[in-house]
Amino acid sequence: MAKTIPTSPLAVEMPALPAVAGVKLGTAAAGIRYQGRDDLMMMEFVAGTTVAGVFTQSKCPGAPVDWCRRALRGGTARAVVVNAGNANVFTGKAGEEAARLSAEAAAQLSGCDAGEVFLASTGVIGEVLPHAKLTAALPALHGTLAPDNWAAAARGIMTTDTFPKAATRTARIGEGTVTIVGIAKGSGMVAPDMATMLSFVATDAKLPQAVLQSCLKRAVDGSFNCTTVDSDTSTSDTVLLFATGQAEHARVSRLSGGVLTEFQAALDELLHDLALQVVRDGEGAQKLIKVEVTGAVTDASAKRVAMAVANSPLVKTAIAGEDANWGRIVMAVGKAGEPADRDRLSVAVGGTWMARDGGLVPGYDEAPVVAHMKGREIDIAVDLDLGRGSATVWTCDLTHGYIDINGSYRS
Amino acid sequence: MAKTIPTSPLAVEMPALPAVAGVKLGTAAAGIRYQGRDDLMMMEFVAGTTVAGVFTQSKCPGAPVDWCRRALRGGTARAVVVNAGNANVFTGKAGEEAARLSAEAAAQLSGCDAGEVFLASTGVIGEVLPHAKLTAALPALHGTLAPDNWAAAARGIMTTDTFPKAATRTARIGEGTVTIVGIAKGSGMVAPDMATMLSFVATDAKLPQAVLQSCLKRAVDGSFNCTTVDSDTSTSDTVLLFATGQAEHARVSRLSGGVLTEFQAALDELLHDLALQVVRDGEGAQKLIKVEVTGAVTDASAKRVAMAVANSPLVKTAIAGEDANWGRIVMAVGKAGEPADRDRLSVAVGGTWMARDGGLVPGYDEAPVVAHMKGREIDIAVDLDLGRGSATVWTCDLTHGYIDINGSYRS
Repeated sequence: MAKTIPTSPLAVEMPALPAVAGVKLGTAAAGIRYQGRDDLMMMEFVAGTTVAGVFTQSKCPGAPVDWCRRALRGGTARAVVVNAGNANVFTGKAGEEAARLSAEAAAQLSGCDAGEVFLASTGVIGEVLPHAKLTAALPALHGTLAPDNWAAAARGIMTTDTFPKAATRTARIGEGTVTIVGIAKGSGMVAPDMATMLSFVATDAKLPQAVLQSCLKRAVDGSFNCTTVDSDTSTSDTVLLFATGQAEHARVSRLSGGVLTEFQAALDELLHDLALQVVRDGEGAQKLIKVEVTGAVTDASAKRVAMAVANSPLVKTAIAGEDANWGRIVMAVGKAGEPADRDRLSVAVGGTWMARDGGLVPGYDEAPVVAHMKGREIDIAVDLDLGRGSATVWTCDLTHGYIDINGSYRS
Repeated sequence: MAKTIPTSPLAVEMPALPAVAGVKLGTAAAGIRYQGRDDLMMMEFVAGTTVAGVFTQSKCPGAPVDWCRRALRGGTARAVVVNAGNANVFTGKAGEEAARLSAEAAAQLSGCDAGEVFLASTGVIGEVLPHAKLTAALPALHGTLAPDNWAAAARGIMTTDTFPKAATRTARIGEGTVTIVGIAKGSGMVAPDMATMLSFVATDAKLPQAVLQSCLKRAVDGSFNCTTVDSDTSTSDTVLLFATGQAEHARVSRLSGGVLTEFQAALDELLHDLALQVVRDGEGAQKLIKVEVTGAVTDASAKRVAMAVANSPLVKTAIAGEDANWGRIVMAVGKAGEPADRDRLSVAVGGTWMARDGGLVPGYDEAPVVAHMKGREIDIAVDLDLGRGSATVWTCDLTHGYIDINGSYRS
């Protein structure tokens, strides 16, 4: 199990992460599965913090996802507890109980209601979370919580991610400036589990829960929900956004009116940054792939076409082989089940239109395409020439590394 | 490009193939792309032969698929011409013209209308079929057509299939006995193309076109449409069924009444046999996987769940690694978007129920599961415990071989 996976060639450096007023956080080694590293992360929020959440669409979610969905109804948060090594998924009543006991232990330390504690777990499926190890480690961890532990937190939630993922932005709301910091994990593996995407974002903005939820939903739709590594969806995917309300800015009571335009843009950018970091750490990824579809009948149709291309094993293996195989792109467009007219379809790779109006572009210059395919970032564009719908999604290539990571024998 | 791919370890021996009264066939080397092998196949049918067809659902079909869809409206067939090495896909007006000229050349030799000639092409995308090579080879080929060339025909339509695929059955219709023989190609690759599935089936039964089409549709739904190698769909998939009417049996004017029960069963079996041969030749396949879903709300829902499992890269790589990873199966069920209740779900591998009622079966015997995973044929069963809907689909594992075949550099 302790096979070392080299750092992704697409890795990016972690930026310097400022404190967020009203947030203290830290990590500890609870020994839930990993030895010799921190595997437990806690954030504590000042009273009055609002929270928004977006979760996996899986019909088989883990107990922590069920817990968070219920807790979200309260609208406020005082803590989040995250463990790596055990996902507490498909664990029945015992799993529910483990989640409840974990939340209660954190609530006692933070002096709040258990319903204000949020949970996330990532790791092995089908084994009940050993909550006694978690709750035993919490008191000491709680004593070390501090505002400047974001980098350690990003590392503490990793499973076999090959690099930690974090991002930060600032934005003006009225006359005030707010800070947003977020961390994420994803696309690494702990055999025998699937990659889970978790992200925790905090801001000192002061926003009502309903507004915060709208902002988060929009940002997730344009970021994490526009990425795919292998079309598989985890039982535990969770994005939580906490707003501590410590910044000074104009009162915001609703989404409209433009006061949140800059905040929304910053949140969109931050989640997009994190989502692309997750794709960059896709299992075995050697290349980051952008698929841009224009000319679809609607945006939703464009996204389904883009996802069909991004999830096609034949497209992804071709790119791994540095082959600008536009025939496979045409195939993937054709199988998407969305309106498409073969004879109006155009395909470009790296900005060079190779196929246009139902046929190969005669005598197109292959040299820039060949050079583009050797790079780390591959751009595919598809124009359906039917309407004004567009979408952009990101994925990575499908390589021997993916098989190595996911097809290795359990030891 | 001439990399030799070893014969699939899941290959089966080609059976002895009888003649079908009213069918003559043969192959020739037209040099369309391959050298030193036959790449052109022709079948000629006696006058009065009816024909049924099922085609790719791709929105970007090849010119031969367009041609066949139009020809099918006539309801009768006198010939089919199939070439390997060039798919004549995404070739615009020039591709249509190449198809028409090919059909006209065959029609002249067979003394029929071009609309009674069916076409199929498999191979490179985006290059117009060099029809002059095809039509130049046809007259000599036509001179060699004979009833006993089925085995050569199965080989002549291969691209990089690693073994030829054929099957035969007999069935009683009333007091008479009819013969059915079919061949197929699929899941092999000619870089830079996707695997295309082609199948040509002939019988001496005497059946009206509408009846034949119903029989074929049903048989394809239960066979080829229940298989998947990598979720990708070719632009050229084609199944054609020809009925020469040379057998003596009771007149059949409609599908109902039971007279075709045995024929339908034989056709179902034959296409199922061919479809599984295609999966057995899936790119890089080391194991044949059966996914059986029961207890779904409807059969259609069961099939979508089964396909989600069969297309999951995480499930397929786990099986390649001989890992009975039921957690990934739960994940795939959860992402299918179909009604499923995590706490009623059961999963078995090789007949051993590992997960039941939302949790791991305590102390289940792992020994038979481990032994089963080492075999060539893997059985996965999922019981959703919600209703009476069921479905069974087949796929193969996802191995380094798939990446080798599909990710190799173009030379």
